[in-house]
Amino acid sequence: MAYLHYWEDFPVGSVRDFAPRTLEREDVLDFARRYDPQPFHIDDGAARASQFGGLIASGWHVCAFAMRMLCDGDLLATAGMGSPGVETIRWRAPARPGDHLRLRSTVMQARLLKSRPGVGLLLTRWEMHNQRDELVMTMEGYGMVACRGAHAD
Amino acid sequence: MAYLHYWEDFPVGSVRDFAPRTLEREDVLDFARRYDPQPFHIDDGAARASQFGGLIASGWHVCAFAMRMLCDGDLLATAGMGSPGVETIRWRAPARPGDHLRLRSTVMQARLLKSRPGVGLLLTRWEMHNQRDELVMTMEGYGMVACRGAHAD
Repeated sequence: MAYLHYWEDFPVGSVRDFAPRTLEREDVLDFARRYDPQPFHIDDGAARASQFGGLIASGWHVCAFAMRMLCDGDLLATAGMGSPGVETIRWRAPARPGDHLRLRSTVMQARLLKSRPGVGLLLTRWEMHNQRDELVMTMEGYGMVACRGAHAD
Repeated sequence: MAYLHYWEDFPVGSVRDFAPRTLEREDVLDFARRYDPQPFHIDDGAARASQFGGLIASGWHVCAFAMRMLCDGDLLATAGMGSPGVETIRWRAPARPGDHLRLRSTVMQARLLKSRPGVGLLLTRWEMHNQRDELVMTMEGYGMVACRGAHAD
């Protein structure tokens, strides 16, 4: 199968901006009820009384939400081979229902894997901002991507 | 409100084992369709043809799944105040539909926050294993927890 993007297409320093998307209240509640039912994620009254002053999305939801933006942006057109992990996540400001979130991804490191010929590793940094230009979340994580040369078609 | 557990109840070195739980196929597909629709997460045929040899859960799903185990274990009875972030995640082996996963959490660091009297920070390490005792995922992340003294009731 031929993809649009391979490892060579993500040089160090390259920046991608993904289409902003609104974090819907029902999605916040649904994710939290399934995976992270802490009161400030699922209960308006408890959230108002908490240090957050209102409902906030689970941090894991924020990551998953960013992942979907990445998938819809270019990952599904990329020869992606999964991820061995993440170096750091910082949840810097709450993500709240109705927030309009945008994601930027910057390639921090790129190298070929000696252990897997034809596969490259990328370390990318995500920065998510809200509609007030507040930094909501940063993440640095790895992704493996097949090289174009290895998948000549 | 009185909780069962406060920051003082999680000393460095303390270990908690959470009830094992089965990763259901429908949950794997549902999470991936919403948040991480890469072919090896949502399409049996494409997953079989991939380097994974079959459907695997999104790494973000594995984290969310662990989070729910933590909530149901003791977090919902704890004076938790959210998390500023994660130091590292490693997805070491695929989590597959039907896997029976268990989670251990170990407190690595604990300190009081100067900036927020009455609040303590914990760095905890998660280790998730499957039914074959393979290490599936490790994570080290922070959690803020209110101190018992600050919430005398």
